[in-house]
Amino acid sequence: MAMITREECERRDAADSLAPIRDYFLLPEGIIYLLGNSLGPLSTLAAQRVEHAVDVEWGEQLLRSWSDGWWNLPIALGRRLARLIGARPEEVLVTDSTSVDIFKLVVTAARLRPNRRAIVTYENNFPTDLYILDEAAALTGLEVRRVSDRAALIAALDESVALIELTHVDYRSAEIAPMAEITTAAHEAGALVIWDLAHSIGAVPVDLSAADADFAVGCTYKYLNGGPGAPAFVFAAARLHDELHQPIAGWHGHARPFGFEPTYEPASGIRRFSTGSPPILSCAALDGALDVFDAVDLGALFEKSRTLSQLLIDRLEPLFSSGRLELGSPRDAMMRGSHVALRHPNAGAIVAQLEGQGVLTDFREPDYIRLGLAPLYIRYADVFDAADAITNIVEAV
Amino acid sequence: MAMITREECERRDAADSLAPIRDYFLLPEGIIYLLGNSLGPLSTLAAQRVEHAVDVEWGEQLLRSWSDGWWNLPIALGRRLARLIGARPEEVLVTDSTSVDIFKLVVTAARLRPNRRAIVTYENNFPTDLYILDEAAALTGLEVRRVSDRAALIAALDESVALIELTHVDYRSAEIAPMAEITTAAHEAGALVIWDLAHSIGAVPVDLSAADADFAVGCTYKYLNGGPGAPAFVFAAARLHDELHQPIAGWHGHARPFGFEPTYEPASGIRRFSTGSPPILSCAALDGALDVFDAVDLGALFEKSRTLSQLLIDRLEPLFSSGRLELGSPRDAMMRGSHVALRHPNAGAIVAQLEGQGVLTDFREPDYIRLGLAPLYIRYADVFDAADAITNIVEAV
Repeated sequence: MAMITREECERRDAADSLAPIRDYFLLPEGIIYLLGNSLGPLSTLAAQRVEHAVDVEWGEQLLRSWSDGWWNLPIALGRRLARLIGARPEEVLVTDSTSVDIFKLVVTAARLRPNRRAIVTYENNFPTDLYILDEAAALTGLEVRRVSDRAALIAALDESVALIELTHVDYRSAEIAPMAEITTAAHEAGALVIWDLAHSIGAVPVDLSAADADFAVGCTYKYLNGGPGAPAFVFAAARLHDELHQPIAGWHGHARPFGFEPTYEPASGIRRFSTGSPPILSCAALDGALDVFDAVDLGALFEKSRTLSQLLIDRLEPLFSSGRLELGSPRDAMMRGSHVALRHPNAGAIVAQLEGQGVLTDFREPDYIRLGLAPLYIRYADVFDAADAITNIVEAV
Repeated sequence: MAMITREECERRDAADSLAPIRDYFLLPEGIIYLLGNSLGPLSTLAAQRVEHAVDVEWGEQLLRSWSDGWWNLPIALGRRLARLIGARPEEVLVTDSTSVDIFKLVVTAARLRPNRRAIVTYENNFPTDLYILDEAAALTGLEVRRVSDRAALIAALDESVALIELTHVDYRSAEIAPMAEITTAAHEAGALVIWDLAHSIGAVPVDLSAADADFAVGCTYKYLNGGPGAPAFVFAAARLHDELHQPIAGWHGHARPFGFEPTYEPASGIRRFSTGSPPILSCAALDGALDVFDAVDLGALFEKSRTLSQLLIDRLEPLFSSGRLELGSPRDAMMRGSHVALRHPNAGAIVAQLEGQGVLTDFREPDYIRLGLAPLYIRYADVFDAADAITNIVEAV
């Protein structure tokens, strides 16, 4: 496999059932864009959808558009996201940012376990998750216990634990956490789980229903290509809906929002997680971006994610075995998200050199190079070329 | 004045220094759009700015745009809003929705008065303000006292009051609350004030600095024409910045966001109110919409707001004096925001009939007809025609 030629990569690209999807994307010429795990690129469908929202919905129809689609857009977008994460259509809502949504879910979940006082998470969780947990805990009288690994997590599950908050695909290593196993362990201990799917949705298989998941949250501007700062989503299992009491109770989540009643009464179902007016133009971009997924076989998508990252790892194997570079991601493709992390003491300089050669990657403290291999538009030949560029740079360091 | 002719209105329009501004707006043909207090119309400048954000910033520059402008856009937009509300440029930030921002400010303000336990507001405040206050109070162990009027508000100011939250321009009546007077009374009692400027910014004079205001919040999709669900803004007086501890502490508000540190440390200044990634396309629309204001003399703008609403009231005076219609807004133009409220038992039906005649207004429970008279694009002749339509309909009811 390490001996694969560029011609073989091109043949795989030609045979790739997803290859036509790439034509939707407006990718800069002469660039290998391996940053789709941070910001997915613009598609023609997203651009057209924004143009329609601006020129027709806002420009011509004005306020009528609220009743003709905008009011339900967060629900409609949620329904479209559901199939990507194994949720039921009525269990997902697009609203606010990932950080705000984590806050809402943490307080909401804690209220379901009023006699328990601890939140457990990994110490290397994404920073905003850690910050939000700390502040939500301070506000609600809970304490956060940060643990180092899965064994410690399982060991920490006693009757004081109200909830666990974890990121499904680690933002540095791309390691996939075993969702079903951890959720089951949490439930056996009487705790709830919030899964952060920021690096999962649209890139790796997620089956929230099969895992009997309670809550999830995630962002839409990475592998979903929803646009810069596109709004996030929340998932709550339908079995919990009637009990949910979220803390930022704005009028968009009211049972009768146009009754302008003096007292809050939550809407039924997932809509109660709405708060204020959603940013419609950013929602429209996401709506268009999701049109791209309508033509996509998800099984093929997730399979290509794994074969792309496996190709990269195989091509870099000589550097790993000689100790010139360290693989920062799991070797088991089934445990690996859609980016590959490499570790090197000069990671920052390598990222800069790669950029000079048109290979866009990013650096994460302390020594991580991340390469996002979004299967909708990254080709096997791109991975081959990126691996060559990395090899040349690392060998010269 | 009640005898003014349509020709005189046309002459006033021709002499109006703001008249050329109207050409920026894409208003539907044959419609008098009196809903700018709910959703401002599209301007060419906003449309162009969104197109640039989509095609160039997202489509071509991709992730580079975060460092080349997006990261600072919420700050840059805040600086642009500052002059509209008498704030210092470093005191305003665009972030989240109005409802989320009220939540942030209530918890933040309450923490500055840890030994006080009450929040005071008007019982007829905008519903989302009431809902958010109730929930934020429940979460922080405070109580909300709803009072009926200004006398009751002043009487309620004792040493148990941590803060007051009020809407500056009432969403139904358009009555302007005396900001400086109430703020002074609150400060004398040791309390803080949060002003909701949703119906004020871009329509009536606001001078937060002169009032020695503590906090404010507002939306940008009404008189600022920032687009559907455009993000809201927060204001916090610079004298308070170093003490502010907001509850939804996301990575965008961290002192070193790209350090990915495990512990939250707030950024200096107003940026600490940031939470997650802002919806950039919606921010871009607002940015373009604010370009329209660059050419506007604010004194002329606010003056025209008053003369437009005075013209409407004068034209409807025969209906008021005959008891066929009730004025729901203050007669004193200096106490009136940029919409006029009319009250009639058949308000809903009248709104529907007006719409049939191309005059777009809205209905608010229980009996209010609201007419938004946005001075950037509403003409004296429009007001004349709207008054005629109302007169004909009400006389026929």
